[in-house]
Amino acid sequence: MGIPPPREFVETIKPYVPGEQPRGSGIIKLNTNEFPYPPAPEVIEAIRSEAAETVRLYPDPTCVKLREALAPRHGVKPEQITVGNGSDELLRLLVHAYLGDKRKLGIVQPTYTLFEVLAAQFGAEVMVFPLDQGERLSGGLIAAPWDACFLPCPNPPLGTAFPLDDLRRLAEKGRLVVLDGAYIDFAEEQDQEELIEAYPNVVLTRSFSKGWGLAGLRLGYAVGDARMIETINKLRDIYNVNRITQAAGLAALGASAYYKERRRKLIAEREWLAAELGRRRFHVHPSQANFLFARHPRAAELYRTLKDRKILVRHFNHSGLQGGVRITVGTPEENKALLYALDAILPEGNF
Amino acid sequence: MGIPPPREFVETIKPYVPGEQPRGSGIIKLNTNEFPYPPAPEVIEAIRSEAAETVRLYPDPTCVKLREALAPRHGVKPEQITVGNGSDELLRLLVHAYLGDKRKLGIVQPTYTLFEVLAAQFGAEVMVFPLDQGERLSGGLIAAPWDACFLPCPNPPLGTAFPLDDLRRLAEKGRLVVLDGAYIDFAEEQDQEELIEAYPNVVLTRSFSKGWGLAGLRLGYAVGDARMIETINKLRDIYNVNRITQAAGLAALGASAYYKERRRKLIAEREWLAAELGRRRFHVHPSQANFLFARHPRAAELYRTLKDRKILVRHFNHSGLQGGVRITVGTPEENKALLYALDAILPEGNF
Repeated sequence: MGIPPPREFVETIKPYVPGEQPRGSGIIKLNTNEFPYPPAPEVIEAIRSEAAETVRLYPDPTCVKLREALAPRHGVKPEQITVGNGSDELLRLLVHAYLGDKRKLGIVQPTYTLFEVLAAQFGAEVMVFPLDQGERLSGGLIAAPWDACFLPCPNPPLGTAFPLDDLRRLAEKGRLVVLDGAYIDFAEEQDQEELIEAYPNVVLTRSFSKGWGLAGLRLGYAVGDARMIETINKLRDIYNVNRITQAAGLAALGASAYYKERRRKLIAEREWLAAELGRRRFHVHPSQANFLFARHPRAAELYRTLKDRKILVRHFNHSGLQGGVRITVGTPEENKALLYALDAILPEGNF
Repeated sequence: MGIPPPREFVETIKPYVPGEQPRGSGIIKLNTNEFPYPPAPEVIEAIRSEAAETVRLYPDPTCVKLREALAPRHGVKPEQITVGNGSDELLRLLVHAYLGDKRKLGIVQPTYTLFEVLAAQFGAEVMVFPLDQGERLSGGLIAAPWDACFLPCPNPPLGTAFPLDDLRRLAEKGRLVVLDGAYIDFAEEQDQEELIEAYPNVVLTRSFSKGWGLAGLRLGYAVGDARMIETINKLRDIYNVNRITQAAGLAALGASAYYKERRRKLIAEREWLAAELGRRRFHVHPSQANFLFARHPRAAELYRTLKDRKILVRHFNHSGLQGGVRITVGTPEENKALLYALDAILPEGNF
């Protein structure tokens, strides 16, 4: 007997390819944009407190405490926030609620490759607009008849942050605009909250994976008009965020100073590493994220040779990204180890 | 400026209503079918070990270790398993892959109320078949032209387990049959693995929330034909199960003897409690789960009065369930406290 056929569109989905998650030890992992510093002591303590009898009880399905702690940070009410098992979940819910049935998703190119996968999962059409000079929103995107536009700011894999004026031009169209702020904690300050106040069609998504170093626990959230939040909550798995993640996220927020200080260090490292790569004849895109996109004629070979030396970076070969590696900014020691390896692979004169 | 309109079907969704999750203390919580016993020491230890620097790293997106530990328990290969953020996620993925576009979901009545919510979320039609005498699969269900049938075994909120022969009759139809085993750890042994071996159209879903006492951590999985598992993986959020939950689940499996012993105690308590409720003139359905469905002429009042006494049970008033309360089997102390309260509310002669 055969297996039942899935819906037709499922056969056509090309899954998102995550960066390698090596099992071995001794690896310098600069390939998936994780935070290089350990969690604040308060976070460790919060997880240990949850290692208790209470694991047998369902978590709060509405993450009330987290939403109450997050709301004042964005100048909104708790009902304007919903919490997810990573911000990827919220991006999926937004596509599910607003974009199936051949509705059109507008995205820039390059951008977070998950967006196209989500569109395929829900039968949305995708309209792709290359960035002007690889870095600015094109007039074509602003003018196009998309039903929703998903835009990370800063935008991977280059790390570009778009000016608030550009974001406002998108918002003014009155259709759904999702600003994915997974990397916003490493960017120059930008008042995106002003946008959600002025434009009820704008939703911000946020992640604890990067700027809060909790990728392993899965925590993200969305901020926007309370009616839109209510809509996506209708599609959300009920108990989507486990007890420990809720507690750890709350503890991280309570340790904001710890994370702020380490982000400041990371940003300084990013600028230093960009300059050092530039001296080695990489072409490095200006980045406001926790990674650098660096082009080099021997990028593919460098990726492989670094991997042999147990240094993982991510090699891109998509359209417009040829010859590039994306390097997560690590600790000072990790960044120095990377440069040391590059100098061994590319001896002077062979840069 | 207004908010953008979601897809039409979203407006019509009536969200699943989870049982109350009280924040206060001193409450005897017999309303959401949680395991009454604390986790095995190995589980506590596993969580504590994960309270470490590694929370900054993404989890294994494919849960390899967990699948390798689960596979031999079901006599399958690891690629026949996918792991979810609770088994609700897997039920959703199955609906998403196999049931949108007006395809038909066959369910019994009463059953897990989430199924209808999931169908609404993906635009599937629902065909409802009341159980014969409230307890057996009807000929109507077996004969009907559903595209997929979702059937919990044991089936909430009554706790009925269906004979393997009945399940085989469903499987023989060659269309998707999902056997939700959230409560199977409390049932008499039944070789559902024989079904997945014989019928590639059968998928089993399993939960760690009930029989493994990990509701707070969110862990479930699906077992079936490798091609079907691959299909639903295409729709799954990439990093859907966090690091700590993966580690805790693995530790729980390693402590199987601990859980088996406590389930045995729980089943004995269930039978004792059923008899005691019967003596108090409740009509108690035979249950193979960790709860009892008990009817009483004054059910609504009992629910409220028990709540005043800080004992939570779940009151049902859906079609066919009038006058019923669903009581999670607790620890011996909790069950005695429930009976004590009932005796105070319903003095002799007023039963």
